[in-house]
Amino acid sequence: MKPAPSNTRGERALIAAIRARLPRNPAWLAVGIGDDAAVAEPERGALEILTTDTLVEGIHFDRRFSAPADIGWKALAVNLSDIAAMGGTPRLALLSLALPEHFTGDDFDGLIEGFLALAADARVTLAGGNITRSPGPLMVDVTVTGFARRRQVLVRSGGRAGDDLYVTGEVGAAAAGLGWLSGGGPAIDGIDACADRHRRPQPRVRIGALLGRNRAATACMDLSDGLADGARQIAEASGVGVRIEAAALPIPIAARNWFARSGVDASEAASAGGDDYELLFSVPRRWRGRLATVVRQSQGVAITRIGVLTVEPDSILVMGDRTRVLPHGFAHF
Amino acid sequence: MKPAPSNTRGERALIAAIRARLPRNPAWLAVGIGDDAAVAEPERGALEILTTDTLVEGIHFDRRFSAPADIGWKALAVNLSDIAAMGGTPRLALLSLALPEHFTGDDFDGLIEGFLALAADARVTLAGGNITRSPGPLMVDVTVTGFARRRQVLVRSGGRAGDDLYVTGEVGAAAAGLGWLSGGGPAIDGIDACADRHRRPQPRVRIGALLGRNRAATACMDLSDGLADGARQIAEASGVGVRIEAAALPIPIAARNWFARSGVDASEAASAGGDDYELLFSVPRRWRGRLATVVRQSQGVAITRIGVLTVEPDSILVMGDRTRVLPHGFAHF
Repeated sequence: MKPAPSNTRGERALIAAIRARLPRNPAWLAVGIGDDAAVAEPERGALEILTTDTLVEGIHFDRRFSAPADIGWKALAVNLSDIAAMGGTPRLALLSLALPEHFTGDDFDGLIEGFLALAADARVTLAGGNITRSPGPLMVDVTVTGFARRRQVLVRSGGRAGDDLYVTGEVGAAAAGLGWLSGGGPAIDGIDACADRHRRPQPRVRIGALLGRNRAATACMDLSDGLADGARQIAEASGVGVRIEAAALPIPIAARNWFARSGVDASEAASAGGDDYELLFSVPRRWRGRLATVVRQSQGVAITRIGVLTVEPDSILVMGDRTRVLPHGFAHF
Repeated sequence: MKPAPSNTRGERALIAAIRARLPRNPAWLAVGIGDDAAVAEPERGALEILTTDTLVEGIHFDRRFSAPADIGWKALAVNLSDIAAMGGTPRLALLSLALPEHFTGDDFDGLIEGFLALAADARVTLAGGNITRSPGPLMVDVTVTGFARRRQVLVRSGGRAGDDLYVTGEVGAAAAGLGWLSGGGPAIDGIDACADRHRRPQPRVRIGALLGRNRAATACMDLSDGLADGARQIAEASGVGVRIEAAALPIPIAARNWFARSGVDASEAASAGGDDYELLFSVPRRWRGRLATVVRQSQGVAITRIGVLTVEPDSILVMGDRTRVLPHGFAHF
């Protein structure tokens, strides 16, 4: 981070506040926060994985629903999810903030606290970044680097017709939770937990690394933009089609109840909704033993078979005896 | 970059437009744009240098003065400057965009063109990123990684009392150029070139790498926030003071004339002004031979001795027989 001279609690003071909260630099970090750039020793014998993602106030979060700590958490989470989707292990983060006038010192402390709480969970080191003013919305841009051995890297394009399609955790919770937060109405049992999935997604850091290390998946991506979008992306990149069984989708009961009350089909709504940050991946039947190894170490996170990659190039949601074209996912534009 | 389904010229189409302009991936880039993350082979036997910096509309640029291509150029330039300041060689960039409603397809193409023009000059590969909407200003966040051998890394804290202080190129041009752009008034001969220094700073990529490779500097940083700020930062980090000779500052004549017309002292204005993106570095006298090697390969970019690091802890600007405390630099807050 580049300090700059400034008035009360300027960039320099903000950076000092961050540094005061950081644990000691790991041995591989030669230069951390405070110089023109960070300097790190690469992980030996591994490839580096790099991703960047931005959360913008009014687009990705609403400050009425998400506390500063939630925003800091989520800004890191969405990047960790990308590293996991590549089969990698995250290691280092850079944090770039554009802060609006009305963002207070307490807001700042909260944001950093949320960011560093997840960083500690995921054993990721904050190594640098940048802080500037915003004349408009709060923007939080995070870059994360991680690593994986060459044979462990998972891409979207490796799927083959006949591979089973699996998803981690649950889908639709974040969409239902955001729907409830936005629309109001009486609470449904468990809808709070859905709202928390929107506010603080749990990136599947451990499972992503396990999938890579065990070479248990032919293709993988994360569900930032929804299950339907993810399934389409894997199918298109792999040159195949996809069939998803609506009945198999791991939609939590509170989300089902919310969708029912809202008069929408739960499997369609859960497929279309973004923000789940689960992993979607394809596994050939003969690799089921490898997958079982991953499941044994997944620490209680469900891994559910929800469909199959097909020779026919269509993207289909099977609902009992009817089929539908998979809905489109969350569009950023 | 993560494609998302969308309407006319959505994220996916924008990413396709970028990919169409990219040269072939270098051999060290295993996965480029289009998956959840980029995958790169680390540079053998080197440390990795990582930096991120954001340009925000209304804070760092004004769209009345800077074309989209200038903004794209500058967003990369400020990051390349940070890598140079560490003695490194840049290699890979990630580009994160938050685009306002009024940002047209032509604007987008221009921004990418400016970014890729400098990337080609500096031999940097665009390997990924992110595109989203902004409900407010245009924001361009760039991450650049580069490399240097361990002994080549330059930090701010290595300066010692007695070291001479040098600066590359010219100072004050960007501040004068921006002053003219903002304030209007009749043109001064050469003020256009100053405005261009604000719009399209020339990061000292080559000289930074040469300083590192030849171990020619004890401390180094870039002048994003002005010469005075840079001198203070090096002095503070190194636990010394600094004296800068006003008469030695390489201020271009057009900038001198602009400052004179504006009724401000040229050396003070040039020291306080930001956006120069020159390198400021300290060299012990016994390393002058090493510096001469750098100068021989600097391809016409001036390297000027402007002062000295001192035992006394003050930051002083010497103006003839008077001295002043160094002015503060550009404050982001």
